[in-house]
Amino acid sequence: MKKILLTNDDGVLKPGLWAIYDVLSDLGEVTVVAPESMKSAVGMSITLHKPLRLRKIKFGGHVAYSCSGSPSDCVIMAVRHVYGGEGPDFVVSGINEGNNVSLQAVYGSGTIGAAIRACLMGYPAAAFSLSLPEDSVPSAEWMKTMMAKAAAKAKPIISYLLQHGLPKGADYLNVNFPYMVSDSTPYVITRAARNRYKELVEERIDPRGKPYYWLKGELRKDLEPGTDAYAVFVEKAISITFMKADTSAAEKVDGSGLLNYLKTCEK
Amino acid sequence: MKKILLTNDDGVLKPGLWAIYDVLSDLGEVTVVAPESMKSAVGMSITLHKPLRLRKIKFGGHVAYSCSGSPSDCVIMAVRHVYGGEGPDFVVSGINEGNNVSLQAVYGSGTIGAAIRACLMGYPAAAFSLSLPEDSVPSAEWMKTMMAKAAAKAKPIISYLLQHGLPKGADYLNVNFPYMVSDSTPYVITRAARNRYKELVEERIDPRGKPYYWLKGELRKDLEPGTDAYAVFVEKAISITFMKADTSAAEKVDGSGLLNYLKTCEK
Repeated sequence: MKKILLTNDDGVLKPGLWAIYDVLSDLGEVTVVAPESMKSAVGMSITLHKPLRLRKIKFGGHVAYSCSGSPSDCVIMAVRHVYGGEGPDFVVSGINEGNNVSLQAVYGSGTIGAAIRACLMGYPAAAFSLSLPEDSVPSAEWMKTMMAKAAAKAKPIISYLLQHGLPKGADYLNVNFPYMVSDSTPYVITRAARNRYKELVEERIDPRGKPYYWLKGELRKDLEPGTDAYAVFVEKAISITFMKADTSAAEKVDGSGLLNYLKTCEK
Repeated sequence: MKKILLTNDDGVLKPGLWAIYDVLSDLGEVTVVAPESMKSAVGMSITLHKPLRLRKIKFGGHVAYSCSGSPSDCVIMAVRHVYGGEGPDFVVSGINEGNNVSLQAVYGSGTIGAAIRACLMGYPAAAFSLSLPEDSVPSAEWMKTMMAKAAAKAKPIISYLLQHGLPKGADYLNVNFPYMVSDSTPYVITRAARNRYKELVEERIDPRGKPYYWLKGELRKDLEPGTDAYAVFVEKAISITFMKADTSAAEKVDGSGLLNYLKTCEK
């Protein structure tokens, strides 16, 4: 039976985690190690300057570990402490409340950070995120229902990966569900968009006459077909992006021009 | 004259920033926008839930902008507010106090985060970091001297990039200096090591009899030739790694197996 580690960045009690737990437990032996509280947008940060706590809890009759650290801390604690010797066969992170499309999200997301951390430690992984409505707060019932629908559509993806492994050249999967998911929502294989937002700055004046600045994002309207952003927001499809952990460009870049120049300078 | 944006993650007053400022000002028109205090290991985080402050300061006769946010905030504030319309021609981040070798560092470093943020906004960039002694605290004099030596070795790299641009396929450069730098320290082109440390967990018991956990890193002894870690720690050379911002593996991965399987499930 395959061993699956499940984590997230929203916290161990969140419905997205337990929705995918339900489908994962049909596919393997699931161990949950997740942050005790919300750890969004922490990327791959790990906790080095203070110790961590790990508590065994029960939720809906299932055992889980709640960790005081980040999603990356959870992966490390799971692999080195909870599993002990041999780690999991696969790591799942999610389902996140909110999309993680585009490289802007990839580099900052705790959900994806856990997947990348798993890859760097040698474990295949997949991150799952559900788009939320932009202008309203979804009810707890809506969240639970939609997360269950997303989890049902995640199941065959994980089932395939447990059987066949990740395709050659991919280290992890970044999967994003559109705002509304149903049985018939199609799957699309995409590449990551570079930006979803254009970063802008708004200047204001404080009561003492001094300027201060708000960063704000302007949603791009020119989303490119073939990207995760286009799939989720325009096509309303489930975006599956194969990702690499290795960001060095070594193999494909000809650095001889620079190196020759540097040698000339040394003379 | 080329416009160069200079930032870092150690803070605007640090000697590493001003050492490279000195050589950059021979190469172009330098604008400094850097964090007012130390912002290490913040990766690409940006400040969305509170406003930012930006202060014009003078340091050694030079004007600089000190920003209350992260290195990524500094890049955004510089491009959208300080430069106004047209951004810089090139972004330099560093020189960081401490190395940034391996993917473990790439994903978490504020220094490299600023370079990646610049790339996602469309600007070529390079990050520079100096290895520090592991077991002692360097004196302020040592730091100033060594940063000046590192900056002198950084100068021809930036000079080449300003003239020729980044080689095709590279989005930014990650440059790491060894602990001791001299005129004759060689340059090597490398790929990023996956891990520099093996992540470990140490369990302890608190005064109330409950367990708590420290994460710790065990320095790997099996550094691979050709990597940034090998160059800096074994060869004592200056490591130049061409990096990509895009971590999607789309072009090189055959996802047809997964997609066909998912189609079968839909029937």
